[in-house]
Amino acid sequence: MSGLLANKLEVINIGLPSFAEAIAGAGGGVTHVDWTPPAAGDRPAGEALAKLVGNPAVEAANKKAYDAYLSAQPRLVGVGIARDVVPGLEERMVLHAGAPIDWARMCGPMQGGICGALVYEGWASDLDAARQLASSGAIRFDSCHHHAAVGPMAGIISPSMPVWIIDNPVHGNRSYSNLNEGLGKVLRYGANSPEVLARLRWFETTLAPTLKAALEVTGPIDLKPMMAQALHMGDEMHNRNVAATALLFRKLATAMTRSSAKAEDVAASLEFLAANDFSFLNISMAACKAMMDAAHGVEGSSLVTVMARNGVEFGIRVSGTGDAWFTTPAPRVNGLYFPGYSIADAAPDLGDSAITETCGIGGFAMASALAIVKFIGGTPDQALGYTQAMSTITMGRNPGFTLPPLNFAGTPAGIDIRKVVDTGLEPVINTGIAHKDAGVGQIGAGITSAPLSCFTKAVDELARRLGL
Amino acid sequence: MSGLLANKLEVINIGLPSFAEAIAGAGGGVTHVDWTPPAAGDRPAGEALAKLVGNPAVEAANKKAYDAYLSAQPRLVGVGIARDVVPGLEERMVLHAGAPIDWARMCGPMQGGICGALVYEGWASDLDAARQLASSGAIRFDSCHHHAAVGPMAGIISPSMPVWIIDNPVHGNRSYSNLNEGLGKVLRYGANSPEVLARLRWFETTLAPTLKAALEVTGPIDLKPMMAQALHMGDEMHNRNVAATALLFRKLATAMTRSSAKAEDVAASLEFLAANDFSFLNISMAACKAMMDAAHGVEGSSLVTVMARNGVEFGIRVSGTGDAWFTTPAPRVNGLYFPGYSIADAAPDLGDSAITETCGIGGFAMASALAIVKFIGGTPDQALGYTQAMSTITMGRNPGFTLPPLNFAGTPAGIDIRKVVDTGLEPVINTGIAHKDAGVGQIGAGITSAPLSCFTKAVDELARRLGL
Repeated sequence: MSGLLANKLEVINIGLPSFAEAIAGAGGGVTHVDWTPPAAGDRPAGEALAKLVGNPAVEAANKKAYDAYLSAQPRLVGVGIARDVVPGLEERMVLHAGAPIDWARMCGPMQGGICGALVYEGWASDLDAARQLASSGAIRFDSCHHHAAVGPMAGIISPSMPVWIIDNPVHGNRSYSNLNEGLGKVLRYGANSPEVLARLRWFETTLAPTLKAALEVTGPIDLKPMMAQALHMGDEMHNRNVAATALLFRKLATAMTRSSAKAEDVAASLEFLAANDFSFLNISMAACKAMMDAAHGVEGSSLVTVMARNGVEFGIRVSGTGDAWFTTPAPRVNGLYFPGYSIADAAPDLGDSAITETCGIGGFAMASALAIVKFIGGTPDQALGYTQAMSTITMGRNPGFTLPPLNFAGTPAGIDIRKVVDTGLEPVINTGIAHKDAGVGQIGAGITSAPLSCFTKAVDELARRLGL
Repeated sequence: MSGLLANKLEVINIGLPSFAEAIAGAGGGVTHVDWTPPAAGDRPAGEALAKLVGNPAVEAANKKAYDAYLSAQPRLVGVGIARDVVPGLEERMVLHAGAPIDWARMCGPMQGGICGALVYEGWASDLDAARQLASSGAIRFDSCHHHAAVGPMAGIISPSMPVWIIDNPVHGNRSYSNLNEGLGKVLRYGANSPEVLARLRWFETTLAPTLKAALEVTGPIDLKPMMAQALHMGDEMHNRNVAATALLFRKLATAMTRSSAKAEDVAASLEFLAANDFSFLNISMAACKAMMDAAHGVEGSSLVTVMARNGVEFGIRVSGTGDAWFTTPAPRVNGLYFPGYSIADAAPDLGDSAITETCGIGGFAMASALAIVKFIGGTPDQALGYTQAMSTITMGRNPGFTLPPLNFAGTPAGIDIRKVVDTGLEPVINTGIAHKDAGVGQIGAGITSAPLSCFTKAVDELARRLGL
């Protein structure tokens, strides 16, 4: 001991920086290592994690689940009315984003959107009656994800609404999403004025049949090549969809003019689609849902297959834990707000669109979408850094989704709950931000992350199910 | 001297590396500075350069010319038949790419394209007759650039061909380019088979009137914002135009369905445009031509306003040297060749498309088009490097054309002949590569550069005109 102190000390400090600061302040040599204990110091979760790491059953299950994700081939095959095509969607039922939640606990934009949907369906004569009906218990609410569906923001899908139909012939599953309404006053941000409902009716009577006619001309459209191309054109397909939308538009416009659709409907449909750079978002989400559903339900797998927000809770599902949701209060997003708004006006994080990050695009592919920082804040270097960081918590890189600024490396994909809990590094998510009150709409966009505690709970449950 | 040698020597070597290698080989300390004398050691040019550098008249002229370039606002205003709209284009006249050149000296693809044009115009009954007619002296050939026009590769424009019309209301000038034929067997690469000529006739009878009708619905389309957006979507608008084409398609398709055009013509036109990612190239070129013409003719200015290749000579024009061309033999391109072809099969560098680099896009904006390296070779890092290097020889950065991977810096723009000659750094150019024989078509793509000697000659002439 006296020998130790006889020499000049060089200290390595791990964890709390205050120890290092004290040594440095006294003139000592110190190297600080940024580290936090696994599971943020939650001892039972840390012990569960230790049993899952390196476990051969988990590794084998993950290989199977990740391969299913990689091999899925989502295709856009049609447009249908939700009641006719979405499995388990019954009359007097409304689907919403995120984990299941009761009417009374829903956030403002979700309640607003639901009231709009009830009037649109003709189940209520006006918004007051809709609110009464919604709270009466006569309407069943359910998570989109329980019906192979996804919807951005409030994610409202009611039986009369048209939906995109995506199939994955490799695994035989299908997925669904509603049609994107554009920006401004829209149901997904809780707006429900007459113009919003008139647009939904026009979707049903005009846009959807015209799209359907176009898709009958094109036949199934392979989505992975189109998404891969859009990644080379600056989209990450969550908050930036301009390239994918333009590529899809090119296919659909040509087909529409060769289809059975009326010329006037074609012109009106093209005008609507041409004015909305977000048209592809809902297709991107459904394609991701199809890929992740293909990887769901592999006993023992620690692969995240759903990340979704209902505006109150952030929720995830994991391939190896069946129907369970792991939830925690949803954070507010510290993003780039439109003039006149701030984080105090924001609803908590909302929407199924985090399925894109679950699938390795969105925030995980920001390296390919550097121009997005003008919309969500930050710098191009930070955008590159987010993608690089996500490779720490993922199972691999998707060779189907390559990123030119990273010398064509695949996007980091396949979030492993073990790696999230071990490192404390939360999955990054690009998102729009809704006003907390119904009807105001989008007030900003930004970068947020999936809360660690969802993953900690999932680790506990996976270990329990495996009898570890 | 003895004192100098008493100490340990550290040598700085400037220029020829062989001196440094000898010192290093003998174990000496040496730092090598990569340097070549200005004007590559051409003494009269170096003396002319010395008089031009820092010359107040040149600086003032450059400010005026560069400001004109920056402030130009090219708009797509219509489609017309060349004989009706292109200034000075007479009957029995054919325009071609690059500096003026006689029939006998033209390269294979240019002769092939011209023979096709003569049959297309009905001036010759077949290709043999066309070749005889072309060599008889009865046809006048002239540079596109003498008619405010540009054409990719052979750049053939004959009186019956439809052309895009671009105007620049800020300076009151117009520019023109032919319509892009797509890839494969096309006139611009010297192909002239019946299918090539049938496509040109279909352009005249169907595509052009349909585009014209659409542009009557849209009104003038501002091109700089569209080009700026495409730069944020991975295009450099010389060899990669997929985003700009998709954005233009979106506007035109919508307008076509609202126009007076027949439904069948609309469908056929959209099918053609949707299948050709290069549709926007000719518009990009004409927009660049309009911007550079706005900056041309400023007495004393050392700004390059044209770089063009006729397949035999590389030629440039400079704002302050009037109608003069400065030419030198065109190089062959050491690019990425399609399977079965090599540089031995290539025609020398060909086409007016280097007007894009002259204007600060194309090879100068490769930093925004990293995915292009899959088409022209190299790595994303090299693509970034080309853009950075070009800032050494340009007058500034164009704030209208920003590059996300360089943290939204403007593209380097406004090539200064003085800086090229001083540094020996040649402007980089992305280009397609034509087979040396007529009718084979494109055999590759790659990166080349504008030969230094054009710039050296221009420096001499500018100094002479200024009486220096």
